[in-house]
Amino acid sequence: MSRVCVQSFSVSLDGFGTGEGLSREAPFGHAGERLHEWMFATQWGGDMFGRSRGSAGIDDALLRLFSPGIGVEIMGAGKFGYPGWHEDPDWKGWWGPNPPFHTPVLVLTHHLRPSIEMEGGTTFHFSDAAPAQVVAEARRLAGDQDIRLGGGASMIRDYVRAGLVDHMHIVVVPILLGRGVRLWDGLERIEQDYTIESVTAPSGVTHLMFARKQ
Amino acid sequence: MSRVCVQSFSVSLDGFGTGEGLSREAPFGHAGERLHEWMFATQWGGDMFGRSRGSAGIDDALLRLFSPGIGVEIMGAGKFGYPGWHEDPDWKGWWGPNPPFHTPVLVLTHHLRPSIEMEGGTTFHFSDAAPAQVVAEARRLAGDQDIRLGGGASMIRDYVRAGLVDHMHIVVVPILLGRGVRLWDGLERIEQDYTIESVTAPSGVTHLMFARKQ
Repeated sequence: MSRVCVQSFSVSLDGFGTGEGLSREAPFGHAGERLHEWMFATQWGGDMFGRSRGSAGIDDALLRLFSPGIGVEIMGAGKFGYPGWHEDPDWKGWWGPNPPFHTPVLVLTHHLRPSIEMEGGTTFHFSDAAPAQVVAEARRLAGDQDIRLGGGASMIRDYVRAGLVDHMHIVVVPILLGRGVRLWDGLERIEQDYTIESVTAPSGVTHLMFARKQ
Repeated sequence: MSRVCVQSFSVSLDGFGTGEGLSREAPFGHAGERLHEWMFATQWGGDMFGRSRGSAGIDDALLRLFSPGIGVEIMGAGKFGYPGWHEDPDWKGWWGPNPPFHTPVLVLTHHLRPSIEMEGGTTFHFSDAAPAQVVAEARRLAGDQDIRLGGGASMIRDYVRAGLVDHMHIVVVPILLGRGVRLWDGLERIEQDYTIESVTAPSGVTHLMFARKQ
């Protein structure tokens, strides 16, 4: 059966997956780009975000797992748009006409709207269902491929708590954000359910792989 | 001048330096020994805590920095004893007649009492002074040797915020405690003041070294 995976999700050393004060101009709030500079500094990130080509080391290798074998993404409302995007009927996400997903994407929101077909294979669907139902729908859309949980932090937490996550790749960036949305709250003792391996990259970030125990 | 250092201070992945529900029977509360199992599994830890001899790898090597060059320790009231120890006139810490410090130790408490001389060179002094004054007193006691900040989490935070900490070795243990005393609160952007390097040990813990920028 297809796996439910979190891929390359960045948190600060104090556990924040995004900052405070999110807006259309500041998608990560006061965190700015600091949680994601390690991505921009890789070859994959340079290509993806239109920056100069960077390193081809450990960070880059792990980022290249983003697309292969993934048939659908589930993302929270706060990843799809700025606070209040549901009041803008023309909002189609941050990513322009050809988003980098190239699969169906299920956007979690209480403000449902018709699906939006984008260029390059990405279609945004909108759902207000509970996590288990959303995963069932995602499985149907993904065929036998895997399901990416795109974040943000609070939706990842909800899906872990619901026992739905098979694999989680979290990247700890050595900065202290001090405020924002925490990833780890309410997940006490998840180490009992997952095998956890860590490796620190020369860039300074630490990659943590959580694999659900069989 | 002597440096002020934090050595091998363990926190959970969600940033807790100790658990909730501390008592004489449970010095780390609901955390139990989980934050410190990596220490017990080393040669140094086996000798220190009277357990079987463990590994002689990275964790062990870093723990061996505990004593050399250290002339004094500053510790919080919550490390010296259980909540309420100040009401017990016979309380002399957790460590028996010959504590592992073998130097003067300044215990931070509002409940002052006369100094206690132990076997093996450890003397407990009690102080309710502000961090800068305590460090000045510690420097006097340490001669030209360094000063260890022994924890817990809240005293380390206070001393970092006061700009008094030169070096910090924090060990992130891949468990989620969920509750307790957080190390990182109120330290937003300390990465601007420190160079931070990380290395993950085969045991699974990640060692972070914070060195104050010159």
